[in-house]
Amino acid sequence: MDHKDWVRQKLRKLSLSLGFRYTPLEEVQNRLVRVRAGMEKQGIESLLVIQKMNLYYLSGTAQDGLLFVPLEGEPLLMIKRELERAKAESPVTDVVPLKSNREIPSLIQTHYGKVPPIVGLELDVLPVRDYLKFQGFFPGTRFVDGSSILGEARKIKSLFEIDLMRKAGEIGMKVYQEAKEILKEGMTEIEFGGRLEAAAKKYGHEGLLRVRSLNYEAYTWHILSGLTGGIVSQSDSPMGGLGLSPAFPVGASLKVMKAREPILVDFGTCFHGYQADETRMLSIGKMEQKFIDAYNACKEIQDAVLEEIRPGADCQALFLKTLPLAEKLGYKNSFLGPPHLQTRFIGHGIGLELNELPFLAQNQSYPLEEGMTVAVEPKIVFPGEGSAGIENTVVVTKDGYQVITPAGQGIFQV
Amino acid sequence: MDHKDWVRQKLRKLSLSLGFRYTPLEEVQNRLVRVRAGMEKQGIESLLVIQKMNLYYLSGTAQDGLLFVPLEGEPLLMIKRELERAKAESPVTDVVPLKSNREIPSLIQTHYGKVPPIVGLELDVLPVRDYLKFQGFFPGTRFVDGSSILGEARKIKSLFEIDLMRKAGEIGMKVYQEAKEILKEGMTEIEFGGRLEAAAKKYGHEGLLRVRSLNYEAYTWHILSGLTGGIVSQSDSPMGGLGLSPAFPVGASLKVMKAREPILVDFGTCFHGYQADETRMLSIGKMEQKFIDAYNACKEIQDAVLEEIRPGADCQALFLKTLPLAEKLGYKNSFLGPPHLQTRFIGHGIGLELNELPFLAQNQSYPLEEGMTVAVEPKIVFPGEGSAGIENTVVVTKDGYQVITPAGQGIFQV
Repeated sequence: MDHKDWVRQKLRKLSLSLGFRYTPLEEVQNRLVRVRAGMEKQGIESLLVIQKMNLYYLSGTAQDGLLFVPLEGEPLLMIKRELERAKAESPVTDVVPLKSNREIPSLIQTHYGKVPPIVGLELDVLPVRDYLKFQGFFPGTRFVDGSSILGEARKIKSLFEIDLMRKAGEIGMKVYQEAKEILKEGMTEIEFGGRLEAAAKKYGHEGLLRVRSLNYEAYTWHILSGLTGGIVSQSDSPMGGLGLSPAFPVGASLKVMKAREPILVDFGTCFHGYQADETRMLSIGKMEQKFIDAYNACKEIQDAVLEEIRPGADCQALFLKTLPLAEKLGYKNSFLGPPHLQTRFIGHGIGLELNELPFLAQNQSYPLEEGMTVAVEPKIVFPGEGSAGIENTVVVTKDGYQVITPAGQGIFQV
Repeated sequence: MDHKDWVRQKLRKLSLSLGFRYTPLEEVQNRLVRVRAGMEKQGIESLLVIQKMNLYYLSGTAQDGLLFVPLEGEPLLMIKRELERAKAESPVTDVVPLKSNREIPSLIQTHYGKVPPIVGLELDVLPVRDYLKFQGFFPGTRFVDGSSILGEARKIKSLFEIDLMRKAGEIGMKVYQEAKEILKEGMTEIEFGGRLEAAAKKYGHEGLLRVRSLNYEAYTWHILSGLTGGIVSQSDSPMGGLGLSPAFPVGASLKVMKAREPILVDFGTCFHGYQADETRMLSIGKMEQKFIDAYNACKEIQDAVLEEIRPGADCQALFLKTLPLAEKLGYKNSFLGPPHLQTRFIGHGIGLELNELPFLAQNQSYPLEEGMTVAVEPKIVFPGEGSAGIENTVVVTKDGYQVITPAGQGIFQV
């Protein structure tokens, strides 16, 4: 059978039978309204969207292509590979093949009758080399930074998006249920992490946790037991773990997990690109009291933050209120990391990427809004001994919040 | 215990006991000689290395930091997080703390007595926004593209690097051995993929396959069974598979694997950052003859390429010779993808990243050299039906090649 015919006739049906959920046209239209409001505010008459998660957000496809978004009229989806598949996936009506980025200006000229003098690009992630090429392809165009328009639009989630995040949270719940069956004394951290991830994948977890950064990488095998929980690493996180080598110095290691040690599992799940982030504590036998106490303190700090989560709450204030509370509870020098390495955030926005707006952090003074999704994660770290923590992802509702990571909140003891 | 003291006294010992291999000083010195030869050739008197794998290559650490490399004198490692850990990991002697990139020029000034007028940056991956900030921090400096210097240096692997790649290949061999035990009729592709990855992690596989690209992502759960093997995706690969959603439209899906179907497993393993890439075919019961034939053709094409691998062989010529051979074997319209979607390469360099020099591909006319490592991967694709293929990673030796992915080359039938 011809490949094009097969894709046209069969791909959607097969995909739907396996649980695919395509982004509806109305959803893309609503997102475009938000993006265009940002464009108008910044005086940018067009955007050329390149980065994969922004492309997926505005077109419903993650195939190899770019989306041109004018202030008015239909957006133009230009696809290098695979065109027929992008057409099957995207509700965007105007989809054309693209051989090389060099052709983009002429495709825009043909479609809209002109190439705009100002085009917004995602300068937060676009490599310089690509940017210089675009400058050559668009001799009469001035490029400006359109990154924040997309970031601002994405920070409020629709019901469609929140539903996908809830599905990710449900996968996480199943993973923690299975974790109790999998965890055994004498198992290494990485073996346990691999098996948790295998459990998640079985339920449709997508494995890659996307992050908007050149050098920061996310991963699901963040399993720290006893002293590896006291190790800080490259990541902007209270503790990073030992990892498997100097090339991957974060997360689970080949250390064997022992009875009574605190075992911290920070496991993100991903469904249809949307992530839920969650941390739980486990132990083999009863956990050492020091870490039970620290865990309870984290829980108390988390609850104090959650209590104030509602539209209008200031993101920096939510972070700042945790510091005196941690001190009062006796964890001034271990809260959010060892002294001099303490991080300055208590929560991060999450969605298609792990580091989205909003940030509950120092120097982030702006209000929470309905539809934002945030992972709240107090952690306490004792160098050479271990760490404790809890993390839940919540959605900001009209008058408060809802937790979308429903796994049990207590310590999982096996 | 104070965190700094713990890291200084205990981290290396713990890490070594768990199998960490630190990059020796001599190794870094040899790499610097190669990089400096490239700098001299291009007339660049200094490099500022930012991207994590280049940083690891030249410093032995992947902590959050940057490496300044002058043409003469010691390089300067500037670390944001975590300084003590970077010191424990890196053989570089001059290591200083860095609070913000803004401080870099003054650290260079203090250390070398001047800020150089020309600095090479990795413009192939550095985001424009970061670049613009660097321009502000270095008002008297002109930035040039230093990417190719690092790419050229990295394309020849040392014995130390090849040994790490062999270890990755050994993990792959164990994975394929366990695959025969894991594979069961009725299992979904993604469940199988998750379990293979769990098996690999148990042996120290690092999970993330790094790629040098804004949008292209690598992953290990590339399990295609029957008709999903005929689906092309966003990746520059003969077939991509269905994946789990429009947000991750590549690799394993929730499709159930059936008896006699061709099951293609393209699984990369990673040890200390170094990857080995390998494809094998499996089946539950005897595979349909059409795919056995296609597999044998892939094997014949692979062997024809390998036969000519030695220093001096032209990379484009190695690719071009496969086209008439595929046609002769009856696969003109299915070799390397369906018509109009056929890829134009038969192999890719591999090491710390999955898309390194050299490429055995169209428009890549340059000679192989001793110490290069290449994954050779002929594939045949039938839309709506499935695909077949084989892939091995080899190192170019003085007079030929050695395979570093030792898993058995036949079809794995369970």
